[in-house]
Amino acid sequence: MVGVPKRVDHEERRRAIAEALWRIACARGLDGASLRDVAAEAGISLGQLQHYFSSKDEMLVFALKYLGELAEKRIRTRLMGLAVPPSPRDVLRETVLEMLPLDEESRTGNLVQIAYFVRALHDERLRGHAREGVPALRAFFADQVRSGIARGEVDSSRAADAEAMLLIALTDGLTTYLLLEVCTPDEAKGLLEGHLERLFTP
Amino acid sequence: MVGVPKRVDHEERRRAIAEALWRIACARGLDGASLRDVAAEAGISLGQLQHYFSSKDEMLVFALKYLGELAEKRIRTRLMGLAVPPSPRDVLRETVLEMLPLDEESRTGNLVQIAYFVRALHDERLRGHAREGVPALRAFFADQVRSGIARGEVDSSRAADAEAMLLIALTDGLTTYLLLEVCTPDEAKGLLEGHLERLFTP
Repeated sequence: MVGVPKRVDHEERRRAIAEALWRIACARGLDGASLRDVAAEAGISLGQLQHYFSSKDEMLVFALKYLGELAEKRIRTRLMGLAVPPSPRDVLRETVLEMLPLDEESRTGNLVQIAYFVRALHDERLRGHAREGVPALRAFFADQVRSGIARGEVDSSRAADAEAMLLIALTDGLTTYLLLEVCTPDEAKGLLEGHLERLFTP
Repeated sequence: MVGVPKRVDHEERRRAIAEALWRIACARGLDGASLRDVAAEAGISLGQLQHYFSSKDEMLVFALKYLGELAEKRIRTRLMGLAVPPSPRDVLRETVLEMLPLDEESRTGNLVQIAYFVRALHDERLRGHAREGVPALRAFFADQVRSGIARGEVDSSRAADAEAMLLIALTDGLTTYLLLEVCTPDEAKGLLEGHLERLFTP
């Protein structure tokens, strides 16, 4: 039977395809992955896949956005476990810990993101999409720092926006060294805790 | 004529092959690169290449070590330009600035290193080689922090080894965001300067 049964939810099928793409990205990167490979991994025909994505680019961008949404959801869920109202320091700590590759799901997310990053280095359009998430994360972190300053927990000489970017870059660098097994999870956590400890010293 | 003229220096030829490998890594990553591709890029036959490297692995490891040697040499040259004796803070600043992708040569070096990193994620042996350089760099940075403490320029409560790893991770993360064009060169430099400024506040 050609085509897709009407009752299959369009968005759900697009997500299943994105997840097939991630499994490939995680196992061997994105460069070799054709639409045909992804269709096979998702257990559908190439024609069916093309019903949802007309090009590899369109599929990559959708899967990247969906990856960002899932990461954000994981962070939100984790933050909901904090005392109410949570302190800015706890929010920052829990967010960066959720970003690190410390469990299988976030490890997979990080590996997929690296596959995107590598492709984006040679692809201006994908580079634009790959950086899309950063300003929002940076603004969120900067808000926490400003809130820390307002509460007298962070020295007022700290530039919130710079501190936010430092923390993002640090988390990203530690991700690399965790994946290379240069750092242990405990060490990476300790380094981030130490960094926040000094930031939250008025 | 089969074989290689005796007068061609063996090490020099291995380096020329490594440089051909880097050009490929820089343009499209390492995964697709066969010995035949590298030979073509180096302008020699596959047989000639195999005279120097019997496997792709051997070639990758040699080229990775040579890349590390060149990066170290660039850093040493830059440090030789400092006042004598250089302050620990200047040594740290100039070293991390040399590591960032701020000119064409270090950008190329970083792109090649990322190609290795991605391959190492799925290759235990290469991962071992990819982390080889980190302990030496970390020890070097930690020495500078300890020297700063001894000179009364760094608070004695700072853990030199942890500060060293923080600085390495931060530099690495900023490299990612420079390559993605999230940060400008000036911003990345400013963030590292600010981080060192606070470290060197007794």
